[in-house]
Amino acid sequence: MPDVIVLSVSYDGTDLSGFARQPTSDTVQGRLEAALATILRAPVETVGAGRTDAGVHALGQLVTYEATGAEPDARAFMRSLNALCGPDVVVTGIRKAAPGFSARFSAVGREYRYRIVPGPVAPLFLKRYAWWTPTALNLGAMREAAGCLLGEHDFRSFCAASSAIGKRTVRRVEAIEVVPAREMGEHCIVVRIVGNAFLHSMVRIIVGSLVEVGRGKHSALWMKDALEACDRSAAGPTAPPQGLTLWQVDYPEECWL
Amino acid sequence: MPDVIVLSVSYDGTDLSGFARQPTSDTVQGRLEAALATILRAPVETVGAGRTDAGVHALGQLVTYEATGAEPDARAFMRSLNALCGPDVVVTGIRKAAPGFSARFSAVGREYRYRIVPGPVAPLFLKRYAWWTPTALNLGAMREAAGCLLGEHDFRSFCAASSAIGKRTVRRVEAIEVVPAREMGEHCIVVRIVGNAFLHSMVRIIVGSLVEVGRGKHSALWMKDALEACDRSAAGPTAPPQGLTLWQVDYPEECWL
Repeated sequence: MPDVIVLSVSYDGTDLSGFARQPTSDTVQGRLEAALATILRAPVETVGAGRTDAGVHALGQLVTYEATGAEPDARAFMRSLNALCGPDVVVTGIRKAAPGFSARFSAVGREYRYRIVPGPVAPLFLKRYAWWTPTALNLGAMREAAGCLLGEHDFRSFCAASSAIGKRTVRRVEAIEVVPAREMGEHCIVVRIVGNAFLHSMVRIIVGSLVEVGRGKHSALWMKDALEACDRSAAGPTAPPQGLTLWQVDYPEECWL
Repeated sequence: MPDVIVLSVSYDGTDLSGFARQPTSDTVQGRLEAALATILRAPVETVGAGRTDAGVHALGQLVTYEATGAEPDARAFMRSLNALCGPDVVVTGIRKAAPGFSARFSAVGREYRYRIVPGPVAPLFLKRYAWWTPTALNLGAMREAAGCLLGEHDFRSFCAASSAIGKRTVRRVEAIEVVPAREMGEHCIVVRIVGNAFLHSMVRIIVGSLVEVGRGKHSALWMKDALEACDRSAAGPTAPPQGLTLWQVDYPEECWL
Protein backbone atom coordinates (compact mmCIF):
# COMPACT_ATOMS: atom_id res chain seq x y z
CA MET A 1 0.00 0.00 0.00
CA PRO A 2 1.27 3.52 -0.76
CA ASP A 3 2.24 6.05 1.87
CA VAL A 4 -0.26 8.75 2.66
CA ILE A 5 0.41 12.42 1.99
CA VAL A 6 -0.96 14.71 4.70
CA LEU A 7 -1.68 18.37 3.95
CA SER A 8 -2.26 20.94 6.71
CA VAL A 9 -4.77 23.39 5.32
CA SER A 10 -6.16 26.75 6.50
CA TYR A 11 -9.02 28.54 4.82
CA ASP A 12 -11.19 31.61 5.08
CA GLY A 13 -14.62 30.12 4.49
CA THR A 14 -16.40 33.43 3.81
CA ASP A 15 -16.71 32.96 0.05
CA LEU A 16 -16.55 29.16 -0.07
CA SER A 17 -19.37 26.60 -0.17
CA GLY A 18 -17.83 24.54 2.63
CA PHE A 19 -15.21 21.79 2.69
CA ALA A 20 -16.84 18.88 0.85
CA ARG A 21 -16.59 18.73 -2.94
CA GLN A 22 -19.80 19.50 -4.85
CA PRO A 23 -20.29 19.29 -8.60
CA THR A 24 -20.94 22.99 -9.25
CA SER A 25 -19.82 24.92 -6.15
CA ASP A 26 -16.50 26.39 -5.07
CA THR A 27 -15.34 24.19 -2.17
CA VAL A 28 -12.07 23.60 -0.32
CA GLN A 29 -11.88 19.94 -1.34
CA GLY A 30 -12.78 20.83 -4.93
CA ARG A 31 -9.99 23.40 -5.13
CA LEU A 32 -7.42 21.08 -3.54
CA GLU A 33 -8.32 18.13 -5.79
CA ALA A 34 -8.22 20.30 -8.92
CA ALA A 35 -4.80 21.68 -7.92
CA LEU A 36 -3.45 18.20 -7.08
CA ALA A 37 -4.71 16.82 -10.41
CA THR A 38 -2.98 19.66 -12.26
CA ILE A 39 0.34 19.21 -10.45
CA LEU A 40 0.36 15.38 -10.33
CA ARG A 41 -1.27 14.89 -13.77
CA ALA A 42 -3.70 12.32 -12.38
CA PRO A 43 -7.04 12.45 -10.57
CA VAL A 44 -6.61 12.49 -6.77
CA GLU A 45 -9.23 11.67 -4.14
CA THR A 46 -8.80 13.43 -0.79
CA VAL A 47 -10.23 12.93 2.71
CA GLY A 48 -10.62 15.78 5.23
CA ALA A 49 -10.63 15.57 9.03
CA GLY A 50 -13.75 17.76 9.33
CA ARG A 51 -16.43 18.46 6.76
CA THR A 52 -16.97 22.13 7.62
CA ASP A 53 -20.09 23.91 6.33
CA ALA A 54 -20.30 26.89 3.99
CA GLY A 55 -18.90 30.02 5.67
CA VAL A 56 -16.97 28.10 8.36
CA HIS A 57 -13.20 28.67 8.59
CA ALA A 58 -10.29 26.36 9.34
CA LEU A 59 -6.86 27.00 10.83
CA GLY A 60 -5.70 23.38 11.19
CA GLN A 61 -7.74 21.23 8.82
CA LEU A 62 -5.95 18.03 7.75
CA VAL A 63 -6.42 16.52 4.30
CA THR A 64 -4.99 13.20 3.16
CA TYR A 65 -4.57 11.29 -0.11
CA GLU A 66 -2.56 8.26 -1.23
CA ALA A 67 0.90 9.20 -2.51
CA THR A 68 1.19 8.98 -6.29
CA GLY A 69 5.00 9.01 -6.34
CA ALA A 70 4.91 12.09 -8.59
CA GLU A 71 5.07 14.60 -5.71
CA PRO A 72 7.87 17.14 -6.15
CA ASP A 73 9.88 18.27 -3.09
CA ALA A 74 7.73 19.65 -0.28
CA ARG A 75 8.68 23.31 -0.71
CA ALA A 76 8.02 23.50 -4.44
CA PHE A 77 4.90 21.35 -4.04
CA MET A 78 3.46 23.70 -1.40
CA ARG A 79 4.25 26.74 -3.51
CA SER A 80 2.46 25.22 -6.52
CA LEU A 81 -0.55 24.17 -4.44
CA ASN A 82 -0.85 27.64 -2.91
CA ALA A 83 -0.53 29.35 -6.28
CA LEU A 84 -3.43 27.22 -7.57
CA CYS A 85 -5.68 27.17 -4.44
CA GLY A 86 -5.18 30.65 -2.93
CA PRO A 87 -5.56 33.18 -1.63
CA ASP A 88 -8.40 32.00 0.66
CA VAL A 89 -7.23 28.35 0.84
CA VAL A 90 -3.63 27.97 2.07
CA VAL A 91 -1.59 24.78 2.46
CA THR A 92 0.63 25.41 5.49
CA GLY A 93 2.45 22.07 5.76
CA ILE A 94 3.07 18.70 4.12
CA ARG A 95 3.94 15.45 5.92
CA LYS A 96 3.89 11.73 5.26
CA ALA A 97 1.95 9.12 7.22
CA ALA A 98 1.91 5.33 7.17
CA PRO A 99 -0.30 3.43 4.69
CA GLY A 100 -3.90 3.30 5.89
CA PHE A 101 -3.75 6.65 7.69
CA SER A 102 -6.88 8.77 7.15
CA ALA A 103 -7.34 12.44 8.10
CA ARG A 104 -10.89 11.54 9.10
CA PHE A 105 -10.76 8.08 10.66
CA SER A 106 -7.36 8.29 12.36
CA ALA A 107 -8.23 11.53 14.19
CA VAL A 108 -8.54 11.14 17.96
CA GLY A 109 -9.51 14.71 18.82
CA ARG A 110 -10.85 17.83 17.18
CA GLU A 111 -10.85 21.37 18.51
CA TYR A 112 -13.26 24.03 17.32
CA ARG A 113 -13.35 27.67 18.40
CA TYR A 114 -16.32 29.99 18.04
CA ARG A 115 -16.03 33.78 18.40
CA ILE A 116 -18.92 35.91 19.67
CA VAL A 117 -18.84 39.71 19.85
CA PRO A 118 -21.49 40.92 22.32
CA GLY A 119 -22.51 44.56 22.74
CA PRO A 120 -23.98 47.50 20.88
CA VAL A 121 -21.08 48.08 18.47
CA ALA A 122 -20.59 45.73 15.51
CA PRO A 123 -17.17 44.08 15.17
CA LEU A 124 -14.83 45.61 12.60
CA PHE A 125 -11.69 43.50 12.08
CA LEU A 126 -13.56 40.42 13.36
CA LYS A 127 -16.61 41.08 11.19
CA ARG A 128 -16.03 38.06 8.95
CA TYR A 129 -14.88 35.88 11.86
CA ALA A 130 -17.40 36.38 14.65
CA TRP A 131 -21.09 36.39 15.51
CA TRP A 132 -22.28 39.81 16.63
CA THR A 133 -24.97 39.67 19.32
CA PRO A 134 -26.06 43.21 20.27
CA THR A 135 -27.17 42.12 23.78
CA ALA A 136 -24.72 41.58 26.64
CA LEU A 137 -24.05 37.96 27.66
CA ASN A 138 -23.77 36.45 31.14
CA LEU A 139 -20.48 34.54 31.02
CA GLY A 140 -21.01 32.76 34.33
CA ALA A 141 -24.34 31.31 33.22
CA MET A 142 -22.84 30.26 29.88
CA ARG A 143 -19.98 28.47 31.68
CA GLU A 144 -22.36 26.64 33.98
CA ALA A 145 -24.50 25.56 31.00
CA ALA A 146 -21.41 24.45 29.06
CA GLY A 147 -20.38 22.24 31.99
CA CYS A 148 -23.55 20.14 31.49
CA LEU A 149 -22.19 18.97 28.14
CA LEU A 150 -18.84 17.60 29.35
CA GLY A 151 -18.30 13.87 28.91
CA GLU A 152 -19.90 11.19 26.76
CA HIS A 153 -23.56 11.81 25.90
CA ASP A 154 -26.11 11.26 23.18
CA PHE A 155 -25.94 14.66 21.46
CA ARG A 156 -29.00 14.09 19.23
CA SER A 157 -30.51 17.40 20.42
CA PHE A 158 -27.41 19.17 19.06
CA CYS A 159 -27.38 17.58 15.60
CA ALA A 160 -28.93 19.05 12.43
CA ALA A 161 -32.19 17.05 12.41
CA SER A 162 -31.86 15.77 8.84
CA SER A 163 -28.40 14.31 9.60
CA ALA A 164 -29.39 12.41 12.74
CA ILE A 165 -31.88 9.97 11.22
CA GLY A 166 -30.79 6.39 11.84
CA LYS A 167 -27.31 7.40 13.02
CA ARG A 168 -25.40 6.84 16.24
CA THR A 169 -25.29 10.27 17.90
CA VAL A 170 -23.14 9.55 20.97
CA ARG A 171 -20.04 11.76 21.17
CA ARG A 172 -17.53 12.70 23.87
CA VAL A 173 -16.88 16.36 24.73
CA GLU A 174 -13.50 16.48 26.44
CA ALA A 175 -13.27 20.21 27.13
CA ILE A 176 -15.52 23.19 26.74
CA GLU A 177 -14.51 26.69 27.78
CA VAL A 178 -16.18 30.10 27.51
CA VAL A 179 -13.44 32.74 27.77
CA PRO A 180 -13.21 36.49 27.20
CA ALA A 181 -10.52 37.29 24.64
CA ARG A 182 -9.09 40.16 22.65
CA GLU A 183 -8.26 39.56 19.00
CA MET A 184 -7.12 42.21 16.51
CA GLY A 185 -7.66 44.55 19.46
CA GLU A 186 -11.40 43.80 19.62
CA HIS A 187 -13.11 42.23 22.63
CA CYS A 188 -14.88 38.94 22.04
CA ILE A 189 -15.96 35.74 23.78
CA VAL A 190 -14.40 32.52 22.55
CA VAL A 191 -16.16 29.19 23.01
CA ARG A 192 -13.51 26.46 22.75
CA ILE A 193 -14.73 22.88 22.36
CA VAL A 194 -12.59 19.74 22.17
CA GLY A 195 -14.09 16.32 21.46
CA ASN A 196 -13.41 13.03 19.77
CA ALA A 197 -15.77 13.82 16.88
CA PHE A 198 -18.71 16.10 16.20
CA LEU A 199 -22.17 15.70 14.66
CA HIS A 200 -23.39 17.88 11.81
CA SER A 201 -23.81 21.49 13.13
CA MET A 202 -23.10 20.28 16.68
CA VAL A 203 -20.77 23.12 17.68
CA ARG A 204 -23.02 25.77 16.14
CA ILE A 205 -26.14 24.41 17.93
CA ILE A 206 -24.22 24.25 21.22
CA VAL A 207 -23.12 27.88 20.75
CA GLY A 208 -26.64 28.96 19.74
CA SER A 209 -27.94 27.33 22.93
CA LEU A 210 -25.19 28.86 25.11
CA VAL A 211 -26.05 32.32 23.78
CA GLU A 212 -29.72 31.81 24.73
CA VAL A 213 -28.52 31.07 28.26
CA GLY A 214 -26.13 34.05 28.17
CA ARG A 215 -29.00 36.34 27.18
CA GLY A 216 -31.08 35.04 30.09
CA LYS A 217 -33.72 33.42 27.90
CA HIS A 218 -33.06 30.10 29.65
CA SER A 219 -31.37 29.10 32.91
CA ALA A 220 -28.01 27.30 32.85
CA LEU A 221 -29.67 24.03 33.86
CA TRP A 222 -32.00 24.18 30.85
CA MET A 223 -28.95 22.93 28.92
CA LYS A 224 -29.11 19.62 30.79
CA ASP A 225 -32.80 19.22 29.91
CA ALA A 226 -32.06 20.10 26.28
CA LEU A 227 -29.34 17.42 26.21
CA GLU A 228 -31.48 14.73 27.82
CA ALA A 229 -34.44 15.38 25.50
CA CYS A 230 -32.53 13.84 22.55
CA ASP A 231 -34.65 16.02 20.30
CA ARG A 232 -33.34 18.85 18.10
CA SER A 233 -36.28 21.08 18.97
CA ALA A 234 -35.28 21.07 22.66
CA ALA A 235 -32.00 22.94 21.98
CA GLY A 236 -31.37 26.51 20.81
CA PRO A 237 -30.93 27.83 17.26
CA THR A 238 -27.89 27.11 15.08
CA ALA A 239 -25.33 29.91 15.45
CA PRO A 240 -24.22 31.48 12.14
CA PRO A 241 -21.23 29.92 10.37
CA GLN A 242 -18.78 32.84 10.27
CA GLY A 243 -17.94 32.63 13.99
CA LEU A 244 -16.67 29.05 13.71
CA THR A 245 -13.13 27.84 13.02
CA LEU A 246 -11.89 24.24 12.93
CA TRP A 247 -8.84 25.00 15.04
CA GLN A 248 -6.84 21.79 15.34
CA VAL A 249 -7.08 18.03 14.80
CA ASP A 250 -5.11 15.52 16.87
CA TYR A 251 -3.73 12.13 15.86
CA PRO A 252 -1.76 9.49 17.74
CA GLU A 253 1.97 10.39 17.58
CA GLU A 254 2.87 7.02 16.00
CA CYS A 255 0.94 7.88 12.82
CA TRP A 256 3.70 10.11 11.46
CA LEU A 257 6.51 8.75 9.31
CA MET B 1 -16.88 78.48 23.82
CA PRO B 2 -18.82 75.27 23.17
CA ASP B 3 -17.92 71.89 24.65
CA VAL B 4 -16.10 69.49 22.39
CA ILE B 5 -17.58 66.17 21.28
CA VAL B 6 -15.03 63.36 21.14
CA LEU B 7 -15.67 60.30 18.97
CA SER B 8 -13.62 57.09 19.35
CA VAL B 9 -13.38 55.63 15.88
CA SER B 10 -12.09 52.32 14.46
CA TYR B 11 -11.71 51.62 10.78
CA ASP B 12 -10.56 49.00 8.33
CA GLY B 13 -8.50 51.09 5.94
CA THR B 14 -8.34 48.49 3.16
CA ASP B 15 -10.83 50.21 0.86
CA LEU B 16 -10.45 53.77 2.13
CA SER B 17 -8.27 56.62 0.84
CA GLY B 18 -6.91 57.39 4.30
CA PHE B 19 -8.18 59.55 7.14
CA ALA B 20 -8.01 63.10 5.81
CA ARG B 21 -10.95 64.45 3.79
CA GLN B 22 -10.36 64.83 0.04
CA PRO B 23 -12.76 66.31 -2.48
CA THR B 24 -13.37 63.17 -4.55
CA SER B 25 -12.11 60.19 -2.50
CA ASP B 26 -13.74 57.98 0.11
CA THR B 27 -12.03 58.91 3.39
CA VAL B 28 -12.74 58.38 7.09
CA GLN B 29 -13.07 62.10 7.81
CA GLY B 30 -15.25 62.57 4.72
CA ARG B 31 -17.62 59.82 5.83
CA LEU B 32 -17.81 61.09 9.41
CA GLU B 33 -18.42 64.70 8.38
CA ALA B 34 -21.13 63.69 5.89
CA ALA B 35 -22.84 61.55 8.56
CA LEU B 36 -22.60 64.32 11.18
CA ALA B 37 -24.00 66.88 8.73
CA THR B 38 -26.94 64.57 7.97
CA ILE B 39 -27.73 63.92 11.65
CA LEU B 40 -27.07 67.46 12.97
CA ARG B 41 -28.45 69.27 9.88
CA ALA B 42 -25.43 71.58 9.75
CA PRO B 43 -21.92 71.38 8.32
CA VAL B 44 -19.40 70.03 10.88
CA GLU B 45 -15.62 70.32 10.78
CA THR B 46 -13.71 67.53 12.52
CA VAL B 47 -10.11 67.07 13.70
CA GLY B 48 -8.43 63.63 13.98
CA ALA B 49 -5.60 62.58 16.30
CA GLY B 50 -3.65 60.90 13.49
CA ARG B 51 -3.87 61.50 9.74
CA THR B 52 -3.44 57.89 8.67
CA ASP B 53 -2.60 57.12 5.03
CA ALA B 54 -4.63 55.12 2.52
CA GLY B 55 -4.80 51.46 3.54
CA VAL B 56 -3.81 52.07 7.18
CA HIS B 57 -6.22 50.89 9.90
CA ALA B 58 -7.23 52.37 13.25
CA LEU B 59 -8.48 50.78 16.44
CA GLY B 60 -8.44 53.85 18.68
CA GLN B 61 -8.51 56.95 16.47
CA LEU B 62 -10.00 60.01 18.19
CA VAL B 63 -11.99 62.62 16.29
CA THR B 64 -13.29 65.89 17.74
CA TYR B 65 -15.68 68.67 16.74
CA GLU B 66 -17.37 71.57 18.54
CA ALA B 67 -20.73 70.58 20.02
CA THR B 68 -23.68 71.97 18.05
CA GLY B 69 -26.21 71.40 20.81
CA ALA B 70 -28.29 69.27 18.43
CA GLU B 71 -26.64 65.96 19.45
CA PRO B 72 -29.21 63.33 20.44
CA ASP B 73 -28.44 60.99 23.37
CA ALA B 74 -25.15 59.09 23.01
CA ARG B 75 -26.66 55.67 22.26
CA ALA B 76 -29.01 56.80 19.50
CA PHE B 77 -26.32 59.14 18.11
CA MET B 78 -23.79 56.31 17.88
CA ARG B 79 -26.33 54.03 16.20
CA SER B 80 -27.14 56.70 13.60
CA LEU B 81 -23.46 57.47 12.96
CA ASN B 82 -22.66 53.77 12.52
CA ALA B 83 -25.62 53.22 10.20
CA LEU B 84 -24.33 56.06 7.98
CA CYS B 85 -20.53 55.42 8.20
CA GLY B 86 -20.26 51.61 8.32
CA PRO B 87 -19.45 48.88 8.00
CA ASP B 88 -15.72 49.65 7.66
CA VAL B 89 -15.80 52.82 9.81
CA VAL B 90 -17.19 52.25 13.31
CA VAL B 91 -17.78 54.79 16.09
CA THR B 92 -17.13 52.88 19.31
CA GLY B 93 -17.64 55.63 21.89
CA ILE B 94 -18.72 59.23 22.47
CA ARG B 95 -17.48 61.56 25.24
CA LYS B 96 -17.37 65.27 26.01
CA ALA B 97 -14.26 67.33 26.60
CA ALA B 98 -13.70 70.89 27.76
CA PRO B 99 -13.78 73.80 25.30
CA GLY B 100 -10.51 74.07 23.38
CA PHE B 101 -9.78 70.33 23.47
CA SER B 102 -8.44 68.99 20.16
CA ALA B 103 -7.98 65.33 19.19
CA ARG B 104 -4.77 66.40 17.47
CA PHE B 105 -3.18 69.07 19.62
CA SER B 106 -4.22 67.81 23.07
CA ALA B 107 -2.78 64.32 22.47
CA VAL B 108 0.26 63.51 24.59
CA GLY B 109 0.99 60.03 23.23
CA ARG B 110 0.19 57.87 20.24
CA GLU B 111 0.65 54.12 19.91
CA TYR B 112 0.96 52.41 16.55
CA ARG B 113 1.27 48.65 15.93
CA TYR B 114 2.62 47.06 12.77
CA ARG B 115 2.11 43.35 11.97
CA ILE B 116 4.63 41.39 9.91
CA VAL B 117 4.12 37.77 8.83
CA PRO B 118 7.51 36.24 7.95
CA GLY B 119 7.96 32.86 6.26
CA PRO B 120 7.12 30.95 3.11
CA VAL B 121 3.34 30.75 3.63
CA ALA B 122 1.19 33.84 3.00
CA PRO B 123 -1.08 34.98 5.86
CA LEU B 124 -4.74 34.03 5.56
CA PHE B 125 -6.86 35.69 8.26
CA LEU B 126 -4.23 38.43 8.63
CA LYS B 127 -3.90 38.99 4.88
CA ARG B 128 -5.50 42.45 4.98
CA TYR B 129 -3.79 43.38 8.26
CA ALA B 130 -0.14 42.36 7.90
CA TRP B 131 2.92 42.65 5.68
CA TRP B 132 4.02 39.27 4.36
CA THR B 133 7.81 38.91 4.03
CA PRO B 134 8.68 35.46 2.62
CA THR B 135 12.15 35.50 4.25
CA ALA B 136 12.73 34.70 7.92
CA LEU B 137 13.59 37.64 10.20
CA ASN B 138 16.20 37.88 12.97
CA LEU B 139 14.23 39.21 15.93
CA GLY B 140 17.29 39.85 18.09
CA ALA B 141 18.88 42.08 15.44
CA MET B 142 15.59 43.93 14.92
CA ARG B 143 15.31 44.59 18.66
CA GLU B 144 18.84 45.90 18.87
CA ALA B 145 18.21 48.20 15.89
CA ALA B 146 14.92 49.39 17.39
CA GLY B 147 16.74 50.34 20.59
CA CYS B 148 18.77 52.95 18.64
CA LEU B 149 15.57 54.93 18.04
CA LEU B 150 14.47 55.32 21.67
CA GLY B 151 14.34 58.85 23.02
CA GLU B 152 14.22 62.30 21.43
CA HIS B 153 15.91 62.57 18.03
CA ASP B 154 15.68 64.34 14.71
CA PHE B 155 13.79 61.69 12.72
CA ARG B 156 14.23 63.42 9.35
CA SER B 157 15.61 60.17 7.84
CA PHE B 158 12.31 58.51 8.73
CA CYS B 159 9.97 61.08 7.22
CA ALA B 160 8.45 61.00 3.72
CA ALA B 161 10.88 63.38 1.97
CA SER B 162 8.22 65.68 0.52
CA SER B 163 6.72 66.27 3.99
CA ALA B 164 9.97 67.16 5.74
CA ILE B 165 10.86 70.31 3.81
CA GLY B 166 11.12 73.29 6.13
CA LYS B 167 9.56 71.44 9.07
CA ARG B 168 10.76 70.61 12.55
CA THR B 169 11.40 66.86 12.52
CA VAL B 170 12.34 66.19 16.14
CA ARG B 171 10.12 63.61 17.83
CA ARG B 172 10.33 61.47 20.98
CA VAL B 173 9.97 57.66 20.78
CA GLU B 174 8.97 56.50 24.25
CA ALA B 175 8.78 52.77 23.62
CA ILE B 176 9.52 50.44 20.73
CA GLU B 177 9.09 46.67 20.96
CA VAL B 178 9.48 43.86 18.46
CA VAL B 179 7.47 40.89 19.77
CA PRO B 180 6.33 37.55 18.36
CA ALA B 181 2.55 37.21 18.58
CA ARG B 182 -0.30 34.97 17.52
CA GLU B 183 -3.44 36.61 16.17
CA MET B 184 -6.42 34.78 14.67
CA GLY B 185 -4.25 31.69 15.23
CA GLU B 186 -1.55 32.91 12.84
CA HIS B 187 2.02 33.65 13.87
CA CYS B 188 3.27 37.18 13.30
CA ILE B 189 5.74 39.76 14.57
CA VAL B 190 4.29 42.93 16.04
CA VAL B 191 6.29 46.16 16.11
CA ARG B 192 4.77 48.39 18.79
CA ILE B 193 5.82 52.06 18.84
CA VAL B 194 4.75 54.71 21.33
CA GLY B 195 5.72 58.35 20.91
CA ASN B 196 4.52 61.88 21.47
CA ALA B 197 3.84 62.45 17.77
CA PHE B 198 4.93 60.97 14.45
CA LEU B 199 6.13 62.37 11.13
CA HIS B 200 4.50 61.44 7.83
CA SER B 201 5.21 57.72 7.13
CA MET B 202 7.55 57.59 10.16
CA VAL B 203 6.31 54.25 11.53
CA ARG B 204 6.29 52.62 8.08
CA ILE B 205 9.84 53.78 7.30
CA ILE B 206 11.03 52.57 10.73
CA VAL B 207 9.41 49.16 10.07
CA GLY B 208 10.82 49.00 6.53
CA SER B 209 14.27 49.69 7.99
CA LEU B 210 13.85 47.14 10.82
CA VAL B 211 12.90 44.48 8.27
CA GLU B 212 16.10 45.20 6.29
CA VAL B 213 18.03 44.55 9.52
CA GLY B 214 15.92 41.43 10.24
CA ARG B 215 16.74 40.06 6.80
CA GLY B 216 20.46 40.62 7.41
CA LYS B 217 20.83 43.25 4.70
CA HIS B 218 22.18 45.68 7.30
CA SER B 219 23.62 45.30 10.82
CA ALA B 220 21.63 46.50 13.81
CA LEU B 221 23.97 49.46 14.27
CA TRP B 222 23.27 50.66 10.74
CA MET B 223 20.02 52.01 12.23
CA LYS B 224 22.01 54.50 14.31
CA ASP B 225 23.84 55.71 11.19
CA ALA B 226 20.55 55.99 9.31
CA LEU B 227 19.08 58.10 12.13
CA GLU B 228 22.11 60.37 12.38
CA ALA B 229 22.27 60.98 8.62
CA CYS B 230 19.06 63.09 8.79
CA ASP B 231 18.46 62.10 5.20
CA ARG B 232 15.55 59.99 3.93
CA SER B 233 17.79 58.06 1.54
CA ALA B 234 19.86 56.73 4.46
CA ALA B 235 16.91 54.71 5.87
CA GLY B 236 15.09 51.66 4.48
CA PRO B 237 12.01 51.52 2.27
CA THR B 238 8.50 52.45 3.45
CA ALA B 239 6.66 49.32 4.65
CA PRO B 240 3.26 48.78 2.98
CA PRO B 241 0.21 50.37 4.66
CA GLN B 242 -1.92 47.30 5.44
CA GLY B 243 0.30 46.15 8.33
CA LEU B 244 -0.19 49.40 10.26
CA THR B 245 -2.86 50.22 12.85
CA LEU B 246 -3.21 53.43 14.89
CA TRP B 247 -3.78 51.56 18.14
CA GLN B 248 -4.39 54.17 20.84
CA VAL B 249 -4.06 57.89 21.55
CA ASP B 250 -3.47 59.27 25.05
CA TYR B 251 -4.62 62.56 26.56
CA PRO B 252 -4.12 64.11 30.00
CA GLU B 253 -6.83 62.78 32.36
CA GLU B 254 -8.08 66.28 33.18
CA CYS B 255 -9.29 66.80 29.58
CA TRP B 256 -12.45 64.77 30.08
CA LEU B 257 -15.68 66.29 31.33
